[in-house]
Amino acid sequence: MTGGRRFLAKVYVSLKPTVNDPEGNTIAGALGALGFNVEGVRSGRFFQVTLDAADGPGAEKQVAEMCSRLLANPVIETYTFEVAEVQTNRLS
Amino acid sequence: MTGGRRFLAKVYVSLKPTVNDPEGNTIAGALGALGFNVEGVRSGRFFQVTLDAADGPGAEKQVAEMCSRLLANPVIETYTFEVAEVQTNRLS
Repeated sequence: MTGGRRFLAKVYVSLKPTVNDPEGNTIAGALGALGFNVEGVRSGRFFQVTLDAADGPGAEKQVAEMCSRLLANPVIETYTFEVAEVQTNRLS
Repeated sequence: MTGGRRFLAKVYVSLKPTVNDPEGNTIAGALGALGFNVEGVRSGRFFQVTLDAADGPGAEKQVAEMCSRLLANPVIETYTFEVAEVQTNRLS
């Protein structure tokens, strides 16, 4: 069931606010040592997923399922994403 | 030199397109095995930095410097960021 259109999804995964973030704390400390006025840093992950789908809502549904099944850990992480169609140069 | 206003910067760091991305390739393979129509995945990092600055342009200048000095590796990565002021409830 290959869809006819191509989409690029940008997925942002971050730790829930109550979860401890040692990587972010380390980066905040390093930025402070470099002289920046940093109050805090939260670290996360960023994925650019290229996928095929029949239409925009279909692509969004697929991406939401990817997030909940593989890309994010729902116990400690939250995710947001945005999906945009990619123009391909295929002859139609 | 603590600035008077607080800003939240969202920083997106990704590998340059020509750089090999084993993590992204592994995720793309796993998504394909789950039945998704994925053409490719590029992995990256996402930081939310809370900082103090005198004004918006000052905050953007600080964040650009953080990226080039610590958050991204300019040899293999590119970065983008967006900065927005955070409303605090301080009594003025």
